[in-house]
Formats: sequence, C-alpha cells, structure tokens
Amino acid sequence: MIAYEIRQGAYYDSVVLMQLQKSLAELDGVVDAGVVMATEANRDVLAASGMLPEGVTAKADDLLIVVKGEDEAAAQAALAQVDALLKRKQSSTAQDFRPKSLATAVTQHPDAKWVLISVPGRYAAGVAEEALDLDRHVFLYSDNVSLANEIKLKEKAREKGLLVMGPDCGTAVINGIGLGFANRVRRGNIGLVAASGTGLQAVSAEVHNLGGGISQAIGTGGRDVKADVGGITAHQAFDLLNRDPLTDVIVLISKPPSDAVASSLLRAAQKADKPVVVNFIGYAPPGRRLGNLLFASGLSDAAEHAVLLSNEVAAVLPERRPLQGWLRGLFSGGTLAYEMLLGLQSVLTPLYSNIPIRPEQKLADLMTSQAHTILDLGEDEFTQGRLHPMMDNDLRLRRLHQETADPDVDIILLDVVLGEGAHPDPAAELAPAIAEARRAGKRVAAIVVGTEDDPQNLDNQIERLAAAGAQVFPTVNEALDYVYNRLPAPEMAFRPVPLADFSQDGLTAVNVGVESFYESIKAQGGTAVQVDWRPPAGGNEKLMAILAKMKQSG
Amino acid sequence: MIAYEIRQGAYYDSVVLMQLQKSLAELDGVVDAGVVMATEANRDVLAASGMLPEGVTAKADDLLIVVKGEDEAAAQAALAQVDALLKRKQSSTAQDFRPKSLATAVTQHPDAKWVLISVPGRYAAGVAEEALDLDRHVFLYSDNVSLANEIKLKEKAREKGLLVMGPDCGTAVINGIGLGFANRVRRGNIGLVAASGTGLQAVSAEVHNLGGGISQAIGTGGRDVKADVGGITAHQAFDLLNRDPLTDVIVLISKPPSDAVASSLLRAAQKADKPVVVNFIGYAPPGRRLGNLLFASGLSDAAEHAVLLSNEVAAVLPERRPLQGWLRGLFSGGTLAYEMLLGLQSVLTPLYSNIPIRPEQKLADLMTSQAHTILDLGEDEFTQGRLHPMMDNDLRLRRLHQETADPDVDIILLDVVLGEGAHPDPAAELAPAIAEARRAGKRVAAIVVGTEDDPQNLDNQIERLAAAGAQVFPTVNEALDYVYNRLPAPEMAFRPVPLADFSQDGLTAVNVGVESFYESIKAQGGTAVQVDWRPPAGGNEKLMAILAKMKQSG
Repeated sequence: MIAYEIRQGAYYDSVVLMQLQKSLAELDGVVDAGVVMATEANRDVLAASGMLPEGVTAKADDLLIVVKGEDEAAAQAALAQVDALLKRKQSSTAQDFRPKSLATAVTQHPDAKWVLISVPGRYAAGVAEEALDLDRHVFLYSDNVSLANEIKLKEKAREKGLLVMGPDCGTAVINGIGLGFANRVRRGNIGLVAASGTGLQAVSAEVHNLGGGISQAIGTGGRDVKADVGGITAHQAFDLLNRDPLTDVIVLISKPPSDAVASSLLRAAQKADKPVVVNFIGYAPPGRRLGNLLFASGLSDAAEHAVLLSNEVAAVLPERRPLQGWLRGLFSGGTLAYEMLLGLQSVLTPLYSNIPIRPEQKLADLMTSQAHTILDLGEDEFTQGRLHPMMDNDLRLRRLHQETADPDVDIILLDVVLGEGAHPDPAAELAPAIAEARRAGKRVAAIVVGTEDDPQNLDNQIERLAAAGAQVFPTVNEALDYVYNRLPAPEMAFRPVPLADFSQDGLTAVNVGVESFYESIKAQGGTAVQVDWRPPAGGNEKLMAILAKMKQSG
Repeated sequence: MIAYEIRQGAYYDSVVLMQLQKSLAELDGVVDAGVVMATEANRDVLAASGMLPEGVTAKADDLLIVVKGEDEAAAQAALAQVDALLKRKQSSTAQDFRPKSLATAVTQHPDAKWVLISVPGRYAAGVAEEALDLDRHVFLYSDNVSLANEIKLKEKAREKGLLVMGPDCGTAVINGIGLGFANRVRRGNIGLVAASGTGLQAVSAEVHNLGGGISQAIGTGGRDVKADVGGITAHQAFDLLNRDPLTDVIVLISKPPSDAVASSLLRAAQKADKPVVVNFIGYAPPGRRLGNLLFASGLSDAAEHAVLLSNEVAAVLPERRPLQGWLRGLFSGGTLAYEMLLGLQSVLTPLYSNIPIRPEQKLADLMTSQAHTILDLGEDEFTQGRLHPMMDNDLRLRRLHQETADPDVDIILLDVVLGEGAHPDPAAELAPAIAEARRAGKRVAAIVVGTEDDPQNLDNQIERLAAAGAQVFPTVNEALDYVYNRLPAPEMAFRPVPLADFSQDGLTAVNVGVESFYESIKAQGGTAVQVDWRPPAGGNEKLMAILAKMKQSG
C-alpha cells in the first residue's frame, strides 16, 4: 500500500515540497503522504509514521516522495500525478518580471538596502557574500551555514558598516517592516537586539500587547553571542540603537552568551545613554537594577519593564571617573562577598577570589590580591584559631593597609555588618584605615548592614565611616551600582552602521529564497523584489565545485 | 626587635586571644602584636605584616604570641606580661555560678530549648550530639566541622523533630532573639530560611529598614543545601514556617544549591499555602513569578518583594490536579522551548530535550520522547530540506499524534507563533490534533504569541485552539505558571519540628563557647545560661582519643 519515488540531486523550494505533500495527501484513496529531502532526520520522521518502506536508498540531497494509499493502485496513481501537481503549483505563481540575479535586482533597485536570504544552507553564504559586495545589509534566514562562514561574513560586514543578521535569523523588524517571521507591532521607542528569534517575537508582541511600540528589532542569529563570533552583530546593532533618536529604551535578549561576550555587551550597554533591559535567559543575573541596566528574569519580565521604562524620562547621569586600576573587596560577610563577586564577574576581568564562582577565578595566594580581587575573610581558612572578622578586625586592618600600599589599586570595597554578636564599634577601628587609604588616593566604598535598633548605633557608624572618606551604601546592590557606574568602556571601535538606513519608514528589500517572505513584505507596505534564484549548476554538487574552482582561478 | 613565645597544645577562647593581642599592642614600646593559633593561614597573615620571625616551629594547635617592640627590651618586657594580662582578663569576667556541663545546664533550665555552640570545630560535633541527646535544638556557630558529622547530626535531629542550624551558622532570629550575629529587627510576618549568614542578616535588616518585620529567621549553614546533606534543615525550617500562623511570607535565601536540593526545595515551596520569595544567588532563575513563588535577583530585591508581599492578602488558590505522568513540549520557537526547559529543570526530573541546558538532559533519540521532554522542532536537525515548523505543521502534527498515543503522557505543551511569514492558519491544522489529544485524556496547554494586527487573527486562533480543549496562554511565563501550579509534591515525610518552641516571645538558651553570644542574648531580653566549658582532657588530643575509646567501649 506504500509507493515511493526518489529524485536524485534535485533542488526544490521547501514551500513547493510542502504544497506537493499536501496536494498528494488530499487525493482520493491516499491515506498519508511524505515529500522530503531524504536527510536522516526526515527519514526518521517518516519511519515513525510508518511511512519509510524498507530498502529505500535515498541520500540527503535526494528528494523522497512517499504515498500511502488505501491500496497499491491508489498509491501508484498518486505518484503518477507528481509532475502535474508540481507544474500546477509553478503556473499558479505570479509571473511578473523577476531578475535572475542579485546583482541585477540591486542595479534595478538601488534603494534596496536589504537582502533577505533563505536559500538552502549550503548556498546561503555565497549569496550573502555577494550581497555584502554589493553594499547591502543581509538578513540571513538560512540555517546550516558553517561557523567559519558566519565569522567571515560578519567581519566583512563590520568593516563595511553593514549588518549581517543571522545565519538562522528568523526575525527582524526594520523601519516598521517585519522580515522573515515577525509579528505586526506598532512603532514606538523600544529597540530590540536579539540573538534569539522567538525571543524577539515574544518580547515585541508582548510590548505591543502592553501598549508599547518598537523602533527597530534586530536579530543577530543565535551563534553571534558565542565566543567564536564575539557578538559582532549584537555590538553593531546595540551601537546603532544607542545612536538612534527614535529609540529610548534598548532590550538585549539572548540565550546565555559566552562569558566574554556577555561582559563586552554589558560594558557597552552600561556606557549607553539609555536604559537597557537585559535578558540573557538562563544566565544568573548579577542583580536586578545596576546603573542603567535592568536584568529581567524571562521574556515577559523583559517586555513589561521595557514598556515601563519607555514611559519614563531617562535621568541624565553625571559623569563619573571610570575605574582606573584594580578593585579590591575585603569582606567579612560571605554572602555579601559572593553577591558582589557574582555582580562583578559579568563586567570585570580578570577577577579573583578565595570563594571563586568560576574555576579560573581561584586566587593563587590568599595573602596576595591579583588584578580585581574579592576576598571573603570569614572563610574557614581565615578563621581557624581566630575570631570571625565581624568580631575581630585585625585581619582586615592588616589587609586594608596592604591594599592601600598597592599603587595599582583604585577602589577598595568593605562590608560592615552590625548587630548582636558583632564588634561593638567597627568604625573606631576601620575609619582610621579608611582615612589612610583615602590619603593614598584610593576610593573606598563601604556596605553597612544594620538597623537603627542595633547596639552599635547605625547612624553614628555611617557618619564616622563617611567622615573618613568612604562612600557608604546600605546594600550590596547599591555598592554594585556604584561600581557599574564607574566601569571602563570596552574597546570596540568599528565603522558605525549608517543611521540613514534606519531613519525612514518602510524599506525596499531583495528576497532570495522562500517566496512567502517576499509576499509578506509587500503585504506590510514595503517594497520587495523577488530574485528568480536557482542553485548554481542546477544544484549538482560536482558541477558546483568545478564552477567555484573556475571562479577562484579566474 | 621581634620576640615570640609558643605555648604548645594550649586551649584558649578566641575572644581571650584577641583581647590579649590588643592589650599587648597597647603596652609602651610595642609597635605591633600577634596572638594566634599557629595555623598556616595565621602564620601567613603574620608574615605579610613582617611579624613572623624566621625559624618559628609552632604547629596548628600551638598558641603563637609575637611582639614587635621599639627595641628588643620592650618586646621582651611585653612578652613577660602575657600571664598577668591573661589573668586580668579572666578575673574581670562575671563570676556568677556556671554549670560545668551541658547536661547540668539543661537539668537546671528545663525550658532552655536552644543550645548555642561556638567551641572550636574539632569539639563542636560532640557537644552538638550531646545537645540533641538532651532533646534540644542546636545553633552550631562553629566552623571546621566535618561533612560526615554534619550529616550524622542532622539525620539524628530530623528523626527527633529538632533543628540543627549550622555548622558555620552565623545567625538566626528565634522568637525575636538574635542568636550569634544578628541585627535587631522588629517582629513581623516574614519568615526566613537561609543557607547564608550575611544573606539572612542583609535581608532581615533591609526588611526592617523598609518597615517590615521578621517572624523567625532560621539559618541552616551553607553546606545544608549541597547534595550530600540534601537540605535537611532547610526542609524542616520551611515546613515549620509554612505551619507557623505568625508567618505570612517565606523567604528562601542561599548561594546556589545543588540541582537536586533546589528542585526539592522549590517543589516544597510551590506546595506551600503562602507566597515564597526565592533568592538562590547566582542560580539562573526559572522565571520571575511562578505560582506562589517569586524569584528575586539579589538580596535587596528579595527583601523588597518580601515586604511588598507581606502587606498583601494571599489569594486562596483552588485545588489543581497535580501532574500525573509525563509532560511533553513540542515547540516551534527555539527560545520559547529554551525558556520552558529552563523553568522546568528546577522542578521536574528526569527532563530531556534536543536543546539540553545540562548535559544529562540530552535526548538519546530525537524520534522518541523520554520521561518529561521538551522538543525544539525548529532546530537545524529537523529543518534540513524541510520548512520551519512555524510554516509547516507536518512534523509537529505527527509528533502530537505520537504523544497522544503514549498512555504515560499527561500534559502536552505547544507554542503557536503567529505573525508575518508564519503559517496563515495554524489553528486549522492544530485544533483537530488537540481535540484528539483531549479525547485521549491528555491536558494541552498552548502558548500563542501574536498581536491583534497579525494576519492570522489572534482572537480567532485562540478561540479555535481553546474550543479544541487547549488552555491558551499569551506567554511562556504564564504556561510555566500553569505547570508550577500542578507540580506533584515532593516525598519528604519527617517528624515536624514542634511549633510550640517557636510560638512564644523570647527564649531560654544554653551557650557553649564564645561568651559574647551569651551576653547578647541577655541584652535582648532572652534568658541565657553560660556553660563553663573546657575541652575534654584539657585539649590534649591523645588523651581525648583515649577518652573517646573508653566512652565507646563503656
């Protein structure tokens, strides 16, 4: 009752295949149909539905057509109609003039600054490179593009001040026009940068549903924020939105970036003149609100806060002297040290500690700080045969003295935990050491944990620490905020993507690949040009290799 | 100019040593002084201050006294005063009657339900076990207690319905009385469970400073939430606070717990009748607000939300049928799948996926779901030579059929992403499959991402999916919330800690160790008894071993 046909090395648009399958399944006497490129995964899917006959030898670039009929005759009859059905599909397609190549399309439409590419992965990098050579931004929907090609394309684009969104970029909203998959959202003052397709869609849709609007929503492709690519597109897009006068709030969305990319993006974000909502899904947030950054816990949380912030007038922040040299934290409270370390590790490297969160943070020698260092002086290793540093300041005073003597230290962080059981008057011992550090040109920030009922007299402790020259904060979060507002800017000079391509309403785009994307741009009021693309050498891999060789030597 | 003295195998209270050091440093002609047990860390600290003479041979349990004088004579003169200074310290101590043993103290004070232990680590487990044998709760301040002893003590305590807070538990507030290090905070309706000493202090102080109050604040010691201990104390404390009529909001604070402990604690928390604020510092939050759980990003965020929630009247939630069998998620959106996986991995095991966050989640065979499974059907492996599942429902429909046929499946999750580029009418194809699943007794939840301007007609899509029997949600967060409200309760039967020990104001405690803790309980209006504790056999390790042997055989 199952009949099948293999077409070797044939190229068909995926939409055509889906429609052929549906047409076959609707024929009389047909129970089920499958029309797929015969990759392993697709063969497995067929097998799971009892649709993979034994002995089928189709390879990944072969087209496999399977029909399950009520009887053998019905199955065979359906198969016999394949060519007619394919032809019917083609003849129903709009027959307006279509350029045969990207170069032609661009020559005829010089205002088309955008090229959408959704051809199969093995052809996509070539088309994208051609678009960049023609000075066009690229929206690269195709997946299965190699990492090496992604890096090559993005480096080229960065040099030219162009964006490559993708590969595997499902979505973007540029000048109010959705590219690829995109929800229809009102225009507004929230800009999105997303290494996550449905993340971008979910947030932009929720922003709209909450009454907010989108200026630009720029997808980067998921691999952009991994170490190998280094967030090239994310950085370009972020820089663009920061310059964009129509964007008041920026939202950064991604699955967890590599540590290095997270750090460089957060440092860029922290230097922005606008509030930034960060949702690195599954990344332990360094805090809730630090400087101009708000760390959201999930897509909904990000959308809600973007809308809240978009209705606020951003405060103009005074200039702060950036961190020059090292930061050293001398903590008596383990969890306070841990929270500080967690907050800083996203933005400060190299960072060391005796309570490392990441293995590379392990401090080699407890007695010597290295680079940025956060010490928990209450750890077991320090308290054997010695009182806890909340009661006995000796250890911390000696260390404070040592950090003060280090010419490369800029900021010293302390915690002072008041309350029952703690030292009766920590300020008496710490204030002179703080004053000494201040005289040596260090900045000192002290977190004082206490209540007005504590036996030490909270206000008096704060007063004396402040009089000695410390900046005093009641929580780790506020001390972290102090540091975030003084982070050095990341070194990241690149040719800026021209704002002009983003300032007008609507766009003109060239579409190479899935035709429905072309139709959807037109449906949104954009201008689109469909290239009548065919794989080089009709998709024949051997011929393609020969062509590529000729091109190289030519 | 440096003179020193070693006292071998001598036991001194750490407070006595600190005071001796200060007294020495204040003598005429003395520049600096160090009085420490000669552990490696303490020797390093001395060395860093230029206070460790060459050739000093003191061992970890030797007392090392070092004096730096203006000249040799001053240093020697100071050393000669050591005994006199020690004696002066002792004679200034209050000389009221003190029981020599814990057993005596408890006999004389039958209402003393609490024993504070801050003797050196190597003696602490023995004292704690004695306290448990006397049916007392233990506050174990001492650090350097072995993991094996911690487990033994906590298992014994759990059997008896007693709490062991610690080891290395710096703080607690019981019946309004701070134990160990504790800020003075007003009483109120917020209960804390914390595997983090300064975490507990920072949150309780901020709650107070924000106008809220604390019912009970229970420390567990940092290792309690690691896999080996399994959160014994945290579970007991959480259960207690859930039963406590004076507690309306529970706050759970810890550095990242082991995955298994996080999961069991969250499942217990999710079954509580009260809102629970969770701050696992550095743990990627599964969401912001899920069921009765609010995941805070930092200590301040936790304190703020605890106070906000403590002023709200908790809604009574209707009973929901808990998850029976497996949950299967069939997603077209990668980030939606990822966010769901992230949210579920904290509470559902075993959990598998083709986009695993943790290596053990890797699905062995793409075509076969295992236990709880979240699939991203838009991954490269599924889309070669096939349209994305947002455009082509075929793959998902086949999988839906397969999950429906599995008798062990209870809940099926789907996402439906509308918008430009996506399938023009997904409900037309998905609704019949959902109806089929419903007929087979499955529960179906669908996340529909879209706006009212999308070409598919959002309301109409939702209506038809709902009519087919799906619960429809606009965000992953709300779908996660649906699942959280249906989680099975963790199996965790233990003898409850008696509420009676927590209901009255104030407490009576026996203190064994650091004397200032005894004084601080009295200063807070509690009743305290100081045991005149001395190490067995005067701290002589060999004699102690012989004593222990005699006790065992006796």
